Amino acid sequence: MTTGENHIGNQRSAKGTKTYKTFNPLLNIENDQVFYEATSEEINQAVDLASDAFKVFSKKSPKEKAIFLRAITEEILAMGDDLIAMYQSETGLPEGRAKGERGRTIGQLISFADMLEDGNWVEATIDTADLDRAPIPKQDIRKMLIPLGPVVVFGASNFPFAYSTAGGDTASALAAGCPVICKSHPMHAGTSEMVSEAINRAAIKTGMPTGVFSNLNSSGIEVGVELVKHPGVKAVGFTGSIKGGRALYNIASERPEPIPVFAEMGSVNPVVLLPEAIQKRGEALAKTYAGSITLGTGQFCTNPGLLIGIKSDGFSTFIDTLSSEIIKISPSCMLHPNIIGNYERNKENALQQNGLLVTADYTDEVSTNYARQTIVTVEGATFLENTTLHQEVFGPFSMVVQCKDAHELETIIQQLEGQLTGTILAEQEELAKYSSIVDALQNRVGRIIFNGVPTGVEVCPAMLHGGPYPSSTDSRFTAVGLHAVKRWVRPFSFQSWPNSLLPDELKDENPLEILRLVNGNNTKSKI
Amino acid sequence: MTTGENHIGNQRSAKGTKTYKTFNPLLNIENDQVFYEATSEEINQAVDLASDAFKVFSKKSPKEKAIFLRAITEEILAMGDDLIAMYQSETGLPEGRAKGERGRTIGQLISFADMLEDGNWVEATIDTADLDRAPIPKQDIRKMLIPLGPVVVFGASNFPFAYSTAGGDTASALAAGCPVICKSHPMHAGTSEMVSEAINRAAIKTGMPTGVFSNLNSSGIEVGVELVKHPGVKAVGFTGSIKGGRALYNIASERPEPIPVFAEMGSVNPVVLLPEAIQKRGEALAKTYAGSITLGTGQFCTNPGLLIGIKSDGFSTFIDTLSSEIIKISPSCMLHPNIIGNYERNKENALQQNGLLVTADYTDEVSTNYARQTIVTVEGATFLENTTLHQEVFGPFSMVVQCKDAHELETIIQQLEGQLTGTILAEQEELAKYSSIVDALQNRVGRIIFNGVPTGVEVCPAMLHGGPYPSSTDSRFTAVGLHAVKRWVRPFSFQSWPNSLLPDELKDENPLEILRLVNGNNTKSKI
Repeated sequence: MTTGENHIGNQRSAKGTKTYKTFNPLLNIENDQVFYEATSEEINQAVDLASDAFKVFSKKSPKEKAIFLRAITEEILAMGDDLIAMYQSETGLPEGRAKGERGRTIGQLISFADMLEDGNWVEATIDTADLDRAPIPKQDIRKMLIPLGPVVVFGASNFPFAYSTAGGDTASALAAGCPVICKSHPMHAGTSEMVSEAINRAAIKTGMPTGVFSNLNSSGIEVGVELVKHPGVKAVGFTGSIKGGRALYNIASERPEPIPVFAEMGSVNPVVLLPEAIQKRGEALAKTYAGSITLGTGQFCTNPGLLIGIKSDGFSTFIDTLSSEIIKISPSCMLHPNIIGNYERNKENALQQNGLLVTADYTDEVSTNYARQTIVTVEGATFLENTTLHQEVFGPFSMVVQCKDAHELETIIQQLEGQLTGTILAEQEELAKYSSIVDALQNRVGRIIFNGVPTGVEVCPAMLHGGPYPSSTDSRFTAVGLHAVKRWVRPFSFQSWPNSLLPDELKDENPLEILRLVNGNNTKSKI
Repeated sequence: MTTGENHIGNQRSAKGTKTYKTFNPLLNIENDQVFYEATSEEINQAVDLASDAFKVFSKKSPKEKAIFLRAITEEILAMGDDLIAMYQSETGLPEGRAKGERGRTIGQLISFADMLEDGNWVEATIDTADLDRAPIPKQDIRKMLIPLGPVVVFGASNFPFAYSTAGGDTASALAAGCPVICKSHPMHAGTSEMVSEAINRAAIKTGMPTGVFSNLNSSGIEVGVELVKHPGVKAVGFTGSIKGGRALYNIASERPEPIPVFAEMGSVNPVVLLPEAIQKRGEALAKTYAGSITLGTGQFCTNPGLLIGIKSDGFSTFIDTLSSEIIKISPSCMLHPNIIGNYERNKENALQQNGLLVTADYTDEVSTNYARQTIVTVEGATFLENTTLHQEVFGPFSMVVQCKDAHELETIIQQLEGQLTGTILAEQEELAKYSSIVDALQNRVGRIIFNGVPTGVEVCPAMLHGGPYPSSTDSRFTAVGLHAVKRWVRPFSFQSWPNSLLPDELKDENPLEILRLVNGNNTKSKI
């Protein structure tokens, strides 16, 4: 099934001597397959091949690229249960999650294929000539989005399918017309190798150039660093920790030619509980949040790690209910011993801070690599003073902040770092009454939710998954949804270009029948 | 008319002791007005005021912001000839240019006001709920573009109106809903002060918060550096040298919270002359280019500094004609002694390189601060070997590269740094014949021109003014045209938000009647 080799385009390669294995956290054993870390030579080969492939791939028609994306879905599905078994052996996640995430991945690829066939996404903009204009004749100018070049995608630990090898970053980059070099996540190198094989099979079947996709193994940071420094690489997609994302951002910014890095990093996803809602629905909300905090063993980037409210009897009841409900949930396995190790360490570090009260801590015996969920409370003033408490504890851990009044609550929100999401649990009338709190929260997040949970990131055009730093490195882009493609494209203008030589998207006849902005009007008409 | 003070919002302030004066290059004398460099205290005041103003300004309706932008145009025009005289005294540019550039500036402000009234630019995207969906209900999600926060704009030396105080960066940032702090260009601090006064008058008249615009003086780099480092600043717009732009980019990238910098920097704007066009129209093209190279004393960012062709009799004739024609043009005054100093120095540095042949050099006596136009030729191989020759010489200087064949020409283009523009002078049939040259050029530039000149950057939606590094710091954005607004906004999603509390752009009723992507379809319909 796997060989442990890298994919340099559609060729397998294992020139290195540094090897590693993946780990089955459920069984608490190493998996058998040996993976060969990519060498500098292999990195250069992959990038050079991607640069060559770019010349061909960037000229493929939208239809051809759509056929390629659909073929990837077929090749992934053709791997059937073997792929699901590989995923489970490297993550400890249940079959339902594996299949669900595969479905999400397939759905993402298909939605980008649909986007290509629809064609409107290129933002075709045309201003026709007026050569009689005085004093200076107006030239014909036509603009559309074109691909940046080879993109490096870093696999995410917590989404081996949906945000790794053939996940959202890869699907959007390929849709844009950019070859992808995937730096596979070391915790699921086998899953990545299989998915890479699927992508390369699809590339061969649909006539895409070799090098349109490569998959490189690495257990450390060296391969990633070399890739981001490589002059042939033109953009980077990353999902992971703030430390990792910021390091790559710094490297990319310091290059002779800086390149864009979209890193989706950590977030505590603050949830604001307003008084009336707590009074009326506190118990139900507590039960819902016990579920959201422990969903996927708290390993989602939108996990609600911070709940903030104003002291009241209702809020105390909420905390009691949340604490008693969350203890009823059976602990589950985390993705890797390193991840549970970090969870325990970060939780311990938080618990050592002054002023924290543990209100729920699962103390029963659990299997190895299973995470105990924990709820702590803290006073608003204490939280404000100690920014260590603002940091994410990745896992099923939430901190409840009890503010003395609405002003303190607003101050806390203003001082939070940037977040992927912010949630308001409130009666509708309260939104107007606490509008400055709502405004402050909006200013700190990428997505704001009313009376829901932040977990569950719908893949749809209106989704924004990103946000102010450090939740992402550039709040102007999203990692989820069709607009994720905008990270990998640049607008390009043709001036006075012969109609027959323009891309179809910009031709007078509008052969693709796309919506275009022509002389200021949105239209599908010919010119 | 001017006092030399800074504008902190609509208050004048001169707390500093460091002063400087502007210079009239035509008369070769310092102007009288003393300008007071902003202090750290004033910088902090301006940013704090902008942060406060953001809370109010970002909530102004599109119509209110449009009224503000239109009022700025009225206040600028109301300053009449006094403003034109100030501009001329600080630049040495003729009245026609001053008025033309004022017209461009007014036009830009009006086009952003029109954009706001049209309303489509916010990219409203709506995916409605499907609460019956299994296994997970689909929530209502709605996305639109919202402003980033206070933006710092650096005035450009070569466009005191159109790319400075109320220029493209400011107009697009205000349209986005971002307050602006302008770091006025020291060469035209008086013009900036007057335009700042116009903006602040307009702000008062249209009920905009004080701090929506500030104007800070500085003759050195310190004020700019402090501004870019300030945590209250959320984005930066810059037009100028690669050295200056990159320095600001580095500072912004190294902040605890990195912020986007859009710097439009230098470019040599390569022009490729294909054989048949040279054969058929060489003389006419040479005359056209003699004009383009000297236009505005070569002080446009799209000035054609590099002409590349394949050796032939026709190309030799082209060079002879270009050289004899350009000598006939009367030299003109550069913007400042420092600018002509740099021109002379950079030209001298280029001329000292091996293998250059001067074919045109204006040797007659010229007035102080007037620039002598120069044409040099070089062999393709020599150019390839010496990257010093690839650097911009800002002013009326062009280098003609004579390649031995098409392959050498293509290699040269591949090795050029990123450029704002690339031009192909060709017969139409030649574009297909030399398609790999065209592809290589497209890969290095932001705008490609067929049979025209790169100078003259039309302000229209289809314009892309930017390009691969170092022509800009982020090829995904433009400095000219309506889409320049995208630099200062981020997409933001509302999930399950009550309809009555949504921004008008996202309400069910679509009260602004804008085009929206609703469940995948572009429509102006209500929901």
